[in-house]
Order: sequence, then C-alpha cells, then structure tokens
Amino acid sequence: MPIITLLTDFGLADPFVGVMKGVILSINPRVQVVDITHQVRPQDIQEAAFLLWDSYRHFPPATVHVAVVDPGVGSQRLPIALSAQGHFFVGPDNGLFSPVLEALKEVVAIENPAYMLPRPSRTFHGRDIFAPAAAWLTRGVALQELGPLLSKEALKRLPLAKARKEGQRVVGQIVHIDRFGNCISNIPAEMLQGLRGPVVLAAGRRLRLYEHYSQAEPLGAGALINSSGLLEVFLFRGSAAEGLGLRRGQEVEVVAT
Amino acid sequence: MPIITLLTDFGLADPFVGVMKGVILSINPRVQVVDITHQVRPQDIQEAAFLLWDSYRHFPPATVHVAVVDPGVGSQRLPIALSAQGHFFVGPDNGLFSPVLEALKEVVAIENPAYMLPRPSRTFHGRDIFAPAAAWLTRGVALQELGPLLSKEALKRLPLAKARKEGQRVVGQIVHIDRFGNCISNIPAEMLQGLRGPVVLAAGRRLRLYEHYSQAEPLGAGALINSSGLLEVFLFRGSAAEGLGLRRGQEVEVVAT
Amino acid sequence: MPIITLLTDFGLADPFVGVMKGVILSINPRVQVVDITHQVRPQDIQEAAFLLWDSYRHFPPATVHVAVVDPGVGSQRLPIALSAQGHFFVGPDNGLFSPVLEALKEVVAIENPAYMLPRPSRTFHGRDIFAPAAAWLTRGVALQELGPLLSKEALKRLPLAKARKEGQRVVGQIVHIDRFGNCISNIPAEMLQGLRGPVVLAAGRRLRLYEHYSQAEPLGAGALINSSGLLEVFLFRGSAAEGLGLRRGQEVEVVAT
Repeated sequence: MPIITLLTDFGLADPFVGVMKGVILSINPRVQVVDITHQVRPQDIQEAAFLLWDSYRHFPPATVHVAVVDPGVGSQRLPIALSAQGHFFVGPDNGLFSPVLEALKEVVAIENPAYMLPRPSRTFHGRDIFAPAAAWLTRGVALQELGPLLSKEALKRLPLAKARKEGQRVVGQIVHIDRFGNCISNIPAEMLQGLRGPVVLAAGRRLRLYEHYSQAEPLGAGALINSSGLLEVFLFRGSAAEGLGLRRGQEVEVVAT
Repeated sequence: MPIITLLTDFGLADPFVGVMKGVILSINPRVQVVDITHQVRPQDIQEAAFLLWDSYRHFPPATVHVAVVDPGVGSQRLPIALSAQGHFFVGPDNGLFSPVLEALKEVVAIENPAYMLPRPSRTFHGRDIFAPAAAWLTRGVALQELGPLLSKEALKRLPLAKARKEGQRVVGQIVHIDRFGNCISNIPAEMLQGLRGPVVLAAGRRLRLYEHYSQAEPLGAGALINSSGLLEVFLFRGSAAEGLGLRRGQEVEVVAT
Repeated sequence: MPIITLLTDFGLADPFVGVMKGVILSINPRVQVVDITHQVRPQDIQEAAFLLWDSYRHFPPATVHVAVVDPGVGSQRLPIALSAQGHFFVGPDNGLFSPVLEALKEVVAIENPAYMLPRPSRTFHGRDIFAPAAAWLTRGVALQELGPLLSKEALKRLPLAKARKEGQRVVGQIVHIDRFGNCISNIPAEMLQGLRGPVVLAAGRRLRLYEHYSQAEPLGAGALINSSGLLEVFLFRGSAAEGLGLRRGQEVEVVAT
C-alpha cells in the first residue's frame, strides 16, 4: 500500500484534515495516510520546513509528503509537486520545501484540472489541489502530468539559519522546541568533531554534553546529540525551555575547553 | 477498502477513540478508519451537527459516519443508524443528524444484540453499540438487520439557525469558529446573488468581500465565501474571533451598497 | 491486516509519532496502526499503565501494543517485548506493563540488531527499537528471535494502588481523570457486591450510585460503574474534577447504609 503523509497547521479541532483524507481515499482507497503533525504554529512556514526535514527520511521511498502551511492560499503563489531523494512532496511554493531543494530532481506547477477537484476553491487548496495531486501520484500518475516543469531557481526558499564553526567554537540557534521543552538547535553532530572537551553555552549557563537524558539525573540541565543528529539542550524530567528560559531563535554555542 | 469516519467530543487524551477503533477492527480488519474530529466542545450537539454536514460530503458513497456527542447516553434516547445521500450515519438520536435528515432515505433503531458488543454498558455506546453497528454495515449487513424501521417524523431535530434574506439584506449568524479564528456564518453564497455591491457588517465593522485571505494584506479584516460555500469573516494572519471580538451565535449581515 | 497500537507521552505537535509510523510501514506496509493516546502526562508511567490496561482488551488477539513513556531511555533499563492474554506488548521495562504481568506468558529483552534500525540512538528508542520490533512481530518474527528470555521476577513493577474492602466499607483512590472531568477510581464493581444500599463518599460529599449520567439531571453529582467496570464520580454536563475539587490519588469510599 502506498503512503501519503500530512503536515499542516490545520489543528485537529476542525474537519480540515479529515476532509483531505476523504478526498484522498475517494481517489485511491488503498493508501495509508499518516499524520506527521497538524499543530504547526498557524502560518509558521519555518517550523513546518524543519519538521518536514526531520520526518520525511523515516518513510520508505516513493512516499508522497503533503505539507500545507499556506498563508498565501489563493494568491499568485504556485501549487507545486516535486521529487527529491526518492520521495514526492506536494504543497505551496512558499519556502516550505527549502530543506529538500538541494536534492531536487524535478518540480512542476500543479495546473492540470484533471487531477484537481472540480472548481477548486481559493481558500482550501489542501482539499482541492494538494490532496488530489498526492492521491493521483500514488496511483502512478507522473509528476509531469500534473503540470509544466518549473526551474529550480524559480522556487521560493526560506533563509534557513545555519550554524557556523569558527576555530574551536561553534555557534548556532534554537530552531525547535518539542513537547517536553527540549530545545533543538541547528548544530549538527559533525560540526563538533575536533572540538577538545566540548562544553555548551546556552541561556547564560555552561552545560555538559551527555549521551542520554537520565545521565543528568537528578534534575540537571544538559545537552546531547539528539536522535536527529542535532545538538539539543534539555532538563531531565523537566522543560529546558521553561527552566532555562530558552526560546526559538536564541543562540547556542559549543566551545572547547 | 470501506471507510468509517469518527466524529466525537471524546478528545484524544483518553483511550475512548482508540478503543472504538479496536472494536471496529475486531469486526472488520480491512476498513479505513478516518478521524473527522474528537474535539467537539464537550456535549455541544449543535457544533457536531455543523461539522458533520461540513465533512461527510467529501467522502465516497457508502462511507459510514459515526458521530457521538451524547450527553443522554444510557437514557431513553435511541441509538440509530440511517442512510441519506448514499452515505450511512450511526449515533444517538439527539439531533446530531439534523443536517442530513432532509435527504433521509431510511432510519432504524439499533436493537439487534447480534450486532452489539455483549452486555452493552449504559455509559459508552460509542464502543458497545455505534462502533460495532458501523463495522457490521461495512461488512454488508443491511440497515434493517440492525433493528426496526423508525418514522422520519419521530426523529429528534435541532432548531438549526438559518440565514434569511429581506430584500437587499441578508441576516445570519456565526455558527462555527475554526482553529485560525475564522468566523463561519450560516449564510450560503447563493443567498448573496442579486445583492448590488455587497458589504458585510459584523462586530460593528463594515467589511469588504474578498476572494481569498491574502487580498486583505496587510493585517486587514475581511469576509469571503469559504471552501464550504459559506460567508466567513477573517483577519489576515490573525484571529477574527479575537481581533474583532466575534463569538458563535453573533449576528452577521450582508447589505447592498 | 495485523494491528499495532501506540500509546506514548509524545504529544501530537512533534513528528515523533508520525516517524514511528514511517518506520513501522517501512517494515510492514500492510499493518493497521491505531493511536491509543499520545497525551499521557509527560513521563507519567503510572497513568500510561492504567490507560494501557483500559484499552488493550478491546483489540483482537495478536495485536501488538507499543507503549513508550520512557524517562530512562538510553540508560540501563531494558527494552522488552512480551506476550500476555494473547496480545504482544513492546516498550521499556519500567513498570508500564505492570497491569498485564500477572498474565505474562513470555518476555524477552530486545537485543537482536537485525530487528532494530541501524545504529539505534540513545534518546529515541520508540523509533529505533520499539517500532521496528513491533513491525517485525506483525510479520511473524517470534518473540525469542528479538532477544533472550527474561525471568518474570526480574521485571520492574509499579506499586499499583489497589482498593480494599473492610466489612461494609470499600476504600479506593482516584486513578484517572478523563477529558470530561469524570474521576475514575480503582474500585471494581465486584467489590461492591454485598454492600447494602451503597453510597459513595468523595470530596466531603455523599453521592448516589446511578446507572448512567443523565439520571443525575439537572446538574447533579453522582457515581456509577463505568464502561471499564470501575466506580466513577461524575457531574452531569460538567466536570467532577473541577466542580467537586477531586484530584488523582484522592480517596473515595463506598459505604453501606
């Protein structure tokens, strides 16, 4: 059974997500639909881009990932479908797919009405354009049947904050705070290679690098390389965001000792 | 694969919904179960009825829609199953199905113990009566095998607020506020036909009619016909409910200019 | 189609749950994955154990239940898989499975790298160890292929609070508060047998025993035997937790009159 994932800021209180699934299953009743999250902060494209990057790699090749955080719905921004890393991605051209554009293979504007709902609305492309396009892809429709090829350069890109290394010092930022209050940075594990006795500086504190949470017992703050390969600041059995006063966008440093 | 949708006020913190799915899959393991929402405000039958109407139409014919917002569970109110518009609906007879009763084809009281869990409880009919009935319907059991036919007139109906047209003026009410704070009214697009240069009056404000959200940029309030064909008041990149102080039940007017 | 259930404290805002499903479907694309809940209070093993007990019984035999509330992830605590009551259970050995250990048939430590993701992290065993183990079980891999047998006595157990009967008096505790504010105790229906004219004492109040909620209309507090067979304190159309000031752990008594 083919797989379609959904990542939106629609929340779960309204029927938006259920309705998208109804449209998908009307076109292909034999598909597995998996929710990544629908609780992206309303219209926060940057967060959605991070969560998409963090999740798509764990699905099998040929999975179709639909991502809809779309303040510009109905405007000039294009609905697009693209392939990269053996996966498909469907959604608005507003920067959401920035993290996978480096590996872009092919991208099209979704224009073919044969693969949309009849008379698409200008306010709910998730239902009328993106869900149908994804469902048709799982039925073997080729990308180029959905619409004309676009040039990679024409696509919108987010200014994604990147960590930088300066000698024995790495500087990055908190890019996501998870449900437990763990503060995930944009510093990848590889950047720490060669740092002698690395120590983390965050929120005015000096934190040790651990391998897993419970090493910081009891009640201690620490840092570790998390399961996505990124430096993360945590508070064992507590919220680092609350306990240390960390917010998204705040700077984190790793220095040698 | 047949489809069963679930719409409840059970929330997602308790295992109620998961348990209903366990019961369904025990009877028919080859069914697609789709969540519409489980965050109807506790015991708010009116909201549930609106969300059901807004979602069921996007599913293929023969889908079974289970809706459980059921303050009277265990009392005299009947468990019912009905067919309308080529779909099936299963739940309590408390008005929840009012929006589809105009198109009612057949309705039965669920009474046959062969299609319930053994010894049904008096507090969780979602698990013991509605989930099994829905699962059996997807296995081809006919409505009338579930129990005796009821007369359409005997069914409970909600006093659904309807918009009215008075010459060059349409008056309706906010019936739902979505996750983005958009305020959806009960005024259908068709009612605005013939109004010259329509303008929307809501919360003491005069709002322009747009075609999509970002036309009201930057930060402007406006109205549009939403993807369900209803007049909706919005605030671009914000919450109209909060920003304009709109609440469910409040009046909205459209007047000619 | 085989079934895997998921019960975690991961919430739905982060992609943790979606990623686990990606891993499962990469190994077995023909499995039904059902969410029990992901809103266990962070790291509350006791609550998770109650919800697991309350839900697993409603799934068909051979269902694989993955439960991950795991503050000790990455430490010495073992990842385990076990069979009991015809079901499988997969998760950390931290007491989460206490309610099913009485009926334990076989338990193993998950150690075989052939059934894990390559290079498992020390912070996300849900993705790297538990999801793959569950998926392989649904493909017919035997428990003992996952790793060595453990002795039942070696397993961690929670000190689960049990109700006790003293003559014409039963004393228990609130063990869970549901979304409606209903307060569920650990007093099973059978313990009330033989009590003459039982009355419930909770939060300094004397409550009548009803059969279903709406009998306490209008606006009344009451108690009943709920759909799990446990004594529950409720407030009709309201929250007993808020209205009566009840909290988890608080004592509830049933006395004869």
